[in-house]
Amino acid sequence: MCSLPVPREPLRRVAVTGGTHGNEMCGVHLVRHWLQTPGELQRPSFSAMPVLANPAATAACRRYIDRDLNRTFTLTFLKGLPPAGTPDSLELSNQGRELQNPGLSCHFLQYDPAGTGSYSLESVSKNGICLEMGPQPQGVLRADLFSRMRALVASILDFIELFNQGMAFPAFEMDIYRTVDSVDFPRTADGDLAGTVHPQLQDHDFEPLRPGEPIFKLFSGEDVLYEGNSIVYPVFINEAAYYEKHVAFLKTEKIRVSVPALPEITSTLVP
Amino acid sequence: MCSLPVPREPLRRVAVTGGTHGNEMCGVHLVRHWLQTPGELQRPSFSAMPVLANPAATAACRRYIDRDLNRTFTLTFLKGLPPAGTPDSLELSNQGRELQNPGLSCHFLQYDPAGTGSYSLESVSKNGICLEMGPQPQGVLRADLFSRMRALVASILDFIELFNQGMAFPAFEMDIYRTVDSVDFPRTADGDLAGTVHPQLQDHDFEPLRPGEPIFKLFSGEDVLYEGNSIVYPVFINEAAYYEKHVAFLKTEKIRVSVPALPEITSTLVP
Repeated sequence: MCSLPVPREPLRRVAVTGGTHGNEMCGVHLVRHWLQTPGELQRPSFSAMPVLANPAATAACRRYIDRDLNRTFTLTFLKGLPPAGTPDSLELSNQGRELQNPGLSCHFLQYDPAGTGSYSLESVSKNGICLEMGPQPQGVLRADLFSRMRALVASILDFIELFNQGMAFPAFEMDIYRTVDSVDFPRTADGDLAGTVHPQLQDHDFEPLRPGEPIFKLFSGEDVLYEGNSIVYPVFINEAAYYEKHVAFLKTEKIRVSVPALPEITSTLVP
Repeated sequence: MCSLPVPREPLRRVAVTGGTHGNEMCGVHLVRHWLQTPGELQRPSFSAMPVLANPAATAACRRYIDRDLNRTFTLTFLKGLPPAGTPDSLELSNQGRELQNPGLSCHFLQYDPAGTGSYSLESVSKNGICLEMGPQPQGVLRADLFSRMRALVASILDFIELFNQGMAFPAFEMDIYRTVDSVDFPRTADGDLAGTVHPQLQDHDFEPLRPGEPIFKLFSGEDVLYEGNSIVYPVFINEAAYYEKHVAFLKTEKIRVSVPALPEITSTLVP
């Protein structure tokens, strides 16, 4: 074994937030449950703190009251840079592949909001990760998605525990999806919808969309075709919360990335 | 042929309302579309009038602003009784079966709110019918459901046209679902959810639920079983809008009803 001595600070302060949007029920009810039974978030080296992020919106079962909380963390000074030796969130995917059942497999989305800087809640943490579960209806708590979200969080806490113990993680390659831009719904001159997502695109998040394939069905019966000149991978297709943001779907490109190894830290290296 | 002379007044004043709840997008956008292109609602003997029922809630994309509009029409004096010779809504089901494609088949739900009297918008009309489409997410316009709703409305208008022309409709039998009572979610002492609809019940509207079968999955992992002593047919299972009404699902019973014939009216009988 050829482990280089790498400074690696254990993660001790971990928060799990839910209900940033008050009508996303998995997060709301998981956090409420963990506030009653915090043992589920405890590991030998740390205890994650459950946080109900937006109690007012949660009480109203609405995405937000005055403004979208998850678009609000925009000030540069709120952001800390990750210290050397903390884990890249992508390491989690390998952890998930190796230690958990296939039902926990995820897509990894790199979201760089063009020109605006970070604005989401997890961006204020040193090592934030956002779990998106869906498509799922607003205001509905489905047992299958609740269980999956719960298992995903447990898997992440297990990874942090292994990281804190100094465990080695091998290098690997993986596909991730990087946002390119967004596409609005077709609209009338007055701004009303003139159609909606085409049945051939609906429910096909993360699948390839080829030039010439239909993306919208107009109320007049006509199809609108995708006019790009390369394959893209639409995500957040027909998301209820994004109508007001003029987003029918996000276009992403699939790219291959290399995730470096995290070498083992032996007990002699830990201060 | 043995047609009895039956007084049958043609239906001339027909309204099609949408957006009674501002986040039920099929109705909202069909009505908006028909307001622009009213020809779709015209038939030789009448023109149906499109009505956007709750513009304020529609603009906010919320079920309602101050109170649920579709629980508001409670005053007895608002109700007119159907005059003799107008069609029973159940006639429509036969019409649907015979003239339309199988994709338009529906379940017929007889809803008698216990002790409260009628309260919904269609109850103020002489011959009201409410089309429910779902389950579907609030705030999302799906092209498949939009097309289906549009075709269902067209089928109803076609039926009214045939009725107005004096066409005969044969007697038939059909199954309908009659509401028995409602079941709330499992809750903690504080009123929070203690679990949600069981995966074996989720998405199984109008299917038989037998005594001893699971209805809820508690966050603790335990199952809650249906303790009734007869088969029921749950509907409105895990409907987002009904959490606040403390309804996880409605129990219905399936009953067989006979729908009498509407005899033909010949031109000599029409005044």
